[in-house]
Amino acid sequence: MDTIRYAAVLSSVLFLTATTGGHAQAPRPDAALPLQHGGPYDRVFYPENLPAPEDARFFPHAWEQYGAGPVHNAAFAPPAQEPRWLRDGVSWNFAEARAWPLSRADGFDQDVIGERRAMPTLTQFAGNAVGVSVVDGIVYAESDDQFAYAVNARTGKLIWRFSPTPNTLMGTPLVSHGRVYLSAGSVAFNFSNVQQFAKSKTAVRGGGVAFNGIYALDARDGKYLWHFGTQGEAMPTPAISQGRLFFVTGSGNAYALDAATGKQLWKTHLGGMANMSSPMVADGRVFVAMSSPGHVFSLDAASGKVLWKSTIPGADNTGIGDVSPAVADGVVLMDAVADAKKEGKKTTMDTRLVAFDAKTGRTLWQHNMGRGPKPPAFKGGMPMVHDGIAYVGTPVNNIYQAYELKSGKRLWTWHVPNPGPAGSSRGPATYYQGALYISTGPDLYALDPKTGKELGRHHVGGRFGIVNPVIVGGTLYLSNSYDWLHALPVTVVNPGFHPGAGAQGPVT
Amino acid sequence: MDTIRYAAVLSSVLFLTATTGGHAQAPRPDAALPLQHGGPYDRVFYPENLPAPEDARFFPHAWEQYGAGPVHNAAFAPPAQEPRWLRDGVSWNFAEARAWPLSRADGFDQDVIGERRAMPTLTQFAGNAVGVSVVDGIVYAESDDQFAYAVNARTGKLIWRFSPTPNTLMGTPLVSHGRVYLSAGSVAFNFSNVQQFAKSKTAVRGGGVAFNGIYALDARDGKYLWHFGTQGEAMPTPAISQGRLFFVTGSGNAYALDAATGKQLWKTHLGGMANMSSPMVADGRVFVAMSSPGHVFSLDAASGKVLWKSTIPGADNTGIGDVSPAVADGVVLMDAVADAKKEGKKTTMDTRLVAFDAKTGRTLWQHNMGRGPKPPAFKGGMPMVHDGIAYVGTPVNNIYQAYELKSGKRLWTWHVPNPGPAGSSRGPATYYQGALYISTGPDLYALDPKTGKELGRHHVGGRFGIVNPVIVGGTLYLSNSYDWLHALPVTVVNPGFHPGAGAQGPVT
Repeated sequence: MDTIRYAAVLSSVLFLTATTGGHAQAPRPDAALPLQHGGPYDRVFYPENLPAPEDARFFPHAWEQYGAGPVHNAAFAPPAQEPRWLRDGVSWNFAEARAWPLSRADGFDQDVIGERRAMPTLTQFAGNAVGVSVVDGIVYAESDDQFAYAVNARTGKLIWRFSPTPNTLMGTPLVSHGRVYLSAGSVAFNFSNVQQFAKSKTAVRGGGVAFNGIYALDARDGKYLWHFGTQGEAMPTPAISQGRLFFVTGSGNAYALDAATGKQLWKTHLGGMANMSSPMVADGRVFVAMSSPGHVFSLDAASGKVLWKSTIPGADNTGIGDVSPAVADGVVLMDAVADAKKEGKKTTMDTRLVAFDAKTGRTLWQHNMGRGPKPPAFKGGMPMVHDGIAYVGTPVNNIYQAYELKSGKRLWTWHVPNPGPAGSSRGPATYYQGALYISTGPDLYALDPKTGKELGRHHVGGRFGIVNPVIVGGTLYLSNSYDWLHALPVTVVNPGFHPGAGAQGPVT
Repeated sequence: MDTIRYAAVLSSVLFLTATTGGHAQAPRPDAALPLQHGGPYDRVFYPENLPAPEDARFFPHAWEQYGAGPVHNAAFAPPAQEPRWLRDGVSWNFAEARAWPLSRADGFDQDVIGERRAMPTLTQFAGNAVGVSVVDGIVYAESDDQFAYAVNARTGKLIWRFSPTPNTLMGTPLVSHGRVYLSAGSVAFNFSNVQQFAKSKTAVRGGGVAFNGIYALDARDGKYLWHFGTQGEAMPTPAISQGRLFFVTGSGNAYALDAATGKQLWKTHLGGMANMSSPMVADGRVFVAMSSPGHVFSLDAASGKVLWKSTIPGADNTGIGDVSPAVADGVVLMDAVADAKKEGKKTTMDTRLVAFDAKTGRTLWQHNMGRGPKPPAFKGGMPMVHDGIAYVGTPVNNIYQAYELKSGKRLWTWHVPNPGPAGSSRGPATYYQGALYISTGPDLYALDPKTGKELGRHHVGGRFGIVNPVIVGGTLYLSNSYDWLHALPVTVVNPGFHPGAGAQGPVT
């Protein structure tokens, strides 16, 4: 028995004593959270699995927005002196608490629920909805299994795990100044809100069906720091800029908090409800979309004042609040399912892609991406912009397209070969050293960004919902709707990739 | 280090290896449930905490219906040779996974949610909704923390804990022939069902917001045996009779399964949705109530054929499906909130208590229990019948009343002194050896069944939602909305109780 194993045994003796000893458990009148001390939701921490400082320094040191920034391109090329393991990439799978076997093509209870609904239900109540963040050698993930995880990026070993609140965690954990931020929010409605919606077409999503809001933990060990509770869900990933944390809720509010203390700086009632649209921050402005009714907003980051408000014509009211806008070069790019038509028993939709002027909200151009059946759950594609080109997908017809950001000229269309029963193309692509990486359905793809031609493909299994590939050095980091985390070398999906041959410093 | 402790250490080494070793976790293509092997939701089992056979034999050997039977009186007097600990009663508290301090008068996030809503939210997403079952020396509990628990009735030590599915568990675990049955069901609605309700006033409760259905486990060690998935929630406690398991769902169906194998015997579409009304079985018939629309049904247990269908006049459509009917002496006793009136900004309601002829569904008598404000969440009181007298409460005006079952003559009214912010009086009373026991608000009460006069009172803390006291020998067993289990001597609440002085054999 080596010393690390021995330490683990000692700590687990304490754990078991707390778990099995009903007598010993006195009430804790000062408890901040509803949590059994030493119980299954309590924090576990394995300091022996923390990354070595010499590994950690090659990684990003903060992760302040969904997709690593307003363009949604989560790719980081470390400097040339990177260690060999980082350059060549690592490979591991990490099973989270509700892991479903990756080799299963059928979702849990699919025979009961139907294959189109079973997959999103697994995502929304057991698996990872969006991508991970990777900071200082640690992979951070939120899961709808109610846990947040910190895993060693090199080894795939658990550093800490914690479930501070009985709710699904649908976002990417943000990491800034030693703190990690979780956004707790349920997609569901209680019966009062069902009745309310029937009367007024508005309701508080998440109201009365969970404890919603933002939770701040210590990034190193997962220790609870503070939370900011809200009535409606805080489902989308928040955004951090200059020490302020911005988020939106199922009761139609946008908030700014002091990211250090959790104190409210401002609150603006936008109306409608947040779905999965994360606020994006650029040039002192917050850009976010809400649904029911569907609007895109630009807010002043300092005051919360609405600077402009626009919409996507014909947008279906559930879709517009799903997509996080990409903001690049003075353009806000958004899409929404639109023009729903009932054709017999089936409903078909188009996807409308719109570029707004970031300053004024004026529409610069718009395109329809093509009709197809109404997709289940998340009804849009998260756009990504790199070097003046916008890449965007849609689950309506399972495609990705490339557009010139300024002119709106369409460059190519790629059809996902294996979209799966719930539809594909929801997550943003990642651009890295001359190739485009897409995780959708059960597969990972590499495309030529100029032509949309497939460069490589790798079957991972499970399902990627709205998940973007995160790339650091030679490794792709992914989370899975089947409640897994993965690391795999970039070369596995793109045989033409030459580790370490690319640009230096973070790709933006 | 004694042998028991040593065994615990050895088993925990394996646990930690599984938890921390990301590399080691191969996919399990044969897995029956979405579950990380060795993870926080996986089964833990401490055989050293199993009850001694000489203790177990004094307890009930099965628990086949909500409230221990169709009259809802969960009281058991062991024979005179019972051991002293059982006669005098035991005392322990057991913190479950989302335990909130019992001393807190405010629910979690009450400042955000409001005190009336915060309490039911804690119940519905973190704590125990209804009472426990106690079989062969083991206390079984389901919690909305997503876990089922088996705890030694004498020591309060954990025997096993398991969360087979990402869902709230709102029922009393049924135990029969060595198996324990859990009913998984979410109170919530997804957005498709919100839109559906706005169009048609019907929706599938629990549809697309969880994996619903019945889970059968080994009663001794919690091992998974089988599950029967359903689209709508299976929120209420099922019922077992003669090897058949009966349950109802949020999609308006009643089912009978073979309790040994989980194979479907019949399915009848009743319409509406199940809330918390458990099917009760008596004389070869199943009695159950559904809401939206609200009806009481009598079904043939063998075929599922509807024998009669009735309603409570003026019943508010959410209330009638909450209450489990009590069935005694050929009478089906039901209540529902009724006659909702908007008075300014507030809505007030009455509670209507109706006695139906069990054979024909004909109304024998009815009474209004008095007006009060519309209560949050569970909108009724579970009736209990003992020796020709019916006892029933209501959260509308926080009272319990006694009625002669045959004539409908009201005998007394008792006002709960400390109902708490969410209202009291939802759970059934328990009759035991000349006294009535009621757990409601944060307190436990003993009443004189003849007069409704208080005999004693004990402050437990936390909150009792729809929880009935379960009595075996000299001990009261309770579950708490704050996610705790309790055992306490009957003498604590009723100083006049003489342990072991009462009737022999189970009280029915």
